[in-house]
Amino acid sequence: MTDPIANLTALIRCASVTPADNGALSALEAMLEPLGFTVDQVAFEAAGTPTINNLYARLGSDGPHLMFAGHTDVVPPGNEADWSHPPFDAAIDDGMLFGRGAVDMKGGIACFVAAIARHISAHGSPPGSISLLITGDEEGPAINGTTKVLAWAADRGEKWDGCIVGEPTNPNALGDMIKIGRRGSLSGTLTVSGVQGHAAYPHLADNPVRALLPMLESLISPPFDEGTDAFPATNLELTTVDVGNPARNVIPAQASAAFNVRFNDTWSTESLKAEIEQRLESAAADTRFRPGRNKADYELSWRDPASPVFLTRDEQLIETLAGAVEARTGKWPELSTTGGTSDARFIKDYCPVVEFGLVGQTMHMVDERTALTDLENLTGIYEEFLQRWFAP
Amino acid sequence: MTDPIANLTALIRCASVTPADNGALSALEAMLEPLGFTVDQVAFEAAGTPTINNLYARLGSDGPHLMFAGHTDVVPPGNEADWSHPPFDAAIDDGMLFGRGAVDMKGGIACFVAAIARHISAHGSPPGSISLLITGDEEGPAINGTTKVLAWAADRGEKWDGCIVGEPTNPNALGDMIKIGRRGSLSGTLTVSGVQGHAAYPHLADNPVRALLPMLESLISPPFDEGTDAFPATNLELTTVDVGNPARNVIPAQASAAFNVRFNDTWSTESLKAEIEQRLESAAADTRFRPGRNKADYELSWRDPASPVFLTRDEQLIETLAGAVEARTGKWPELSTTGGTSDARFIKDYCPVVEFGLVGQTMHMVDERTALTDLENLTGIYEEFLQRWFAP
Repeated sequence: MTDPIANLTALIRCASVTPADNGALSALEAMLEPLGFTVDQVAFEAAGTPTINNLYARLGSDGPHLMFAGHTDVVPPGNEADWSHPPFDAAIDDGMLFGRGAVDMKGGIACFVAAIARHISAHGSPPGSISLLITGDEEGPAINGTTKVLAWAADRGEKWDGCIVGEPTNPNALGDMIKIGRRGSLSGTLTVSGVQGHAAYPHLADNPVRALLPMLESLISPPFDEGTDAFPATNLELTTVDVGNPARNVIPAQASAAFNVRFNDTWSTESLKAEIEQRLESAAADTRFRPGRNKADYELSWRDPASPVFLTRDEQLIETLAGAVEARTGKWPELSTTGGTSDARFIKDYCPVVEFGLVGQTMHMVDERTALTDLENLTGIYEEFLQRWFAP
Repeated sequence: MTDPIANLTALIRCASVTPADNGALSALEAMLEPLGFTVDQVAFEAAGTPTINNLYARLGSDGPHLMFAGHTDVVPPGNEADWSHPPFDAAIDDGMLFGRGAVDMKGGIACFVAAIARHISAHGSPPGSISLLITGDEEGPAINGTTKVLAWAADRGEKWDGCIVGEPTNPNALGDMIKIGRRGSLSGTLTVSGVQGHAAYPHLADNPVRALLPMLESLISPPFDEGTDAFPATNLELTTVDVGNPARNVIPAQASAAFNVRFNDTWSTESLKAEIEQRLESAAADTRFRPGRNKADYELSWRDPASPVFLTRDEQLIETLAGAVEARTGKWPELSTTGGTSDARFIKDYCPVVEFGLVGQTMHMVDERTALTDLENLTGIYEEFLQRWFAP
């Protein structure tokens, strides 16, 4: 278990495309039990969603209690014929290990297990506890994953003092960046209803596209904020606009659009919803493209739950990890909140959480891969972290 | 043939839903031959379009030469179970004659044939010529219809001095309105290409919707014109906007929209295309929703051929028809250019053309129908017109 390459190979070879497990968690269990972990595999289900297998393992019974969190599920490989090496082979070629999940994020798990194994070898079991909370659904709906494992564990009296999530946080080189928070993510759908009619008789119809334009504009202008100390500016993207009318002489009945906002700590989910609702309500009354007509008839629906914004304020946790990165790479990492979201957004309600893993450049792509040197160096960083975190 | 109700019943009972004829033109031929017309049925075809049957009939060989134009094809009835009386029965109920094509426009043809029959009965053959140019495809692609019959007839030396098209021009009551011109109709498609990406990494993508918004706005604002003496203002409708991206965390690659312009005599098809091209070119450079990005990457394609705008300036033709309407109804009709387009747009290149028929309220709908009194009164108007037009 001290060899991250062997650990990663075993994990990749289980084709655990969400929601399938295909033995990935059992492979992990087989690495943890010999190290002295108590391992539980726990499955959760809910109507309308696939049953998901998860793992919770703990070494030790005292505090302080460190959690390592992550996922063994992976996104689909796409067209396997496009890969240089088959996506579930874990082939090594020219110093790179190829495989779906290599960086996102079986590599992170493999390195952490290796780091624990090396730490125990050098120092014995740590003075405290280490747990691994690993889900089989981070990439999918995430209903039967980390959220439920946390609740299940908390119900059994588990308490944690800090957590590292092993997602691939580095854009280009190992050590670039740790995540100390994540922007929230809120999605909504806007539908405007008009009156269908003949394009030659617009006065007998009410084109919903005319009403939609000012409303779409109100979503992207003015900016929501200019960014905060720890976060970039909140940003809204219009992800689709759809009418679906192929008849060139028909004014359509309805027009809809969807949007996604990545928001910073200027907002809570609720205050952001209120701001957007206000913008749309004002813009619905903007009849500049529909002179003489009434306020637009529209519906706004939110896709719940939103992912909340969070920022970790545990300086000790952050500096222990950053210091470990610097010790191994020679540079202090950027303390970042950019990018998408992760299961850290669930963990934040239980303990301070930071994120650090491999280089994410190839994640979700064909030929996802990691440098063997990155695997060794990440193992070293995790080892350094364990030593510092558990030091008196 | 002097009874418009009998004429119309015979025509309606031929279920001539475009492109099918089902004997409609032969039924018409059978009415015209006894009146002394020379009748030709001419079929035209082109690759990729259905073969269409048409009719050209002429009475007399001298000038002046009056054409009556129209179509026997009809739009589909929709759900026959929704009709009060079957759509191809020509049932009479409470003073109304029901049937697909009753007003659009077998009723117009039926009345004109009756008017000719009555005129001949009262005055003998007119001092000049009357022709009927009736197509089996006005409602469809119109490739093998009126356009080709006109060219065929002109090739054989036919020349006309004026034309009435028997489309249902009255919105509410018989005599409301004659058409003395039609707006042009131009359709186009706009496609903006961006760069697909993850919604959390907008700087690595280029959302085409952001570029599309100012371009759509430029199409509908400012107005193209304020209208002219004979025409309402040119009007552009955005008939669809489509992206088709269901993934809420993805910035799409492409966004497209289609539009239709009904334009007046401020413009030709070419000058209008140039104006629209200019507006889009300017708006493509409007990066207010895409700061720091380049001009939008877009394609504009026209759906050719456009329908040209036209206005009839033959005062004598207009006033002869309007006078006939006034003589029968007591009111001078509105000289209108509103509404959609018609085959008059093809005829305008051959002779002056006006349009007058039944009341169009129920056209294309379930329970299309006409009042029996309207059939009698339209026949009377056409008769009055014939008398005045052929008077020395």
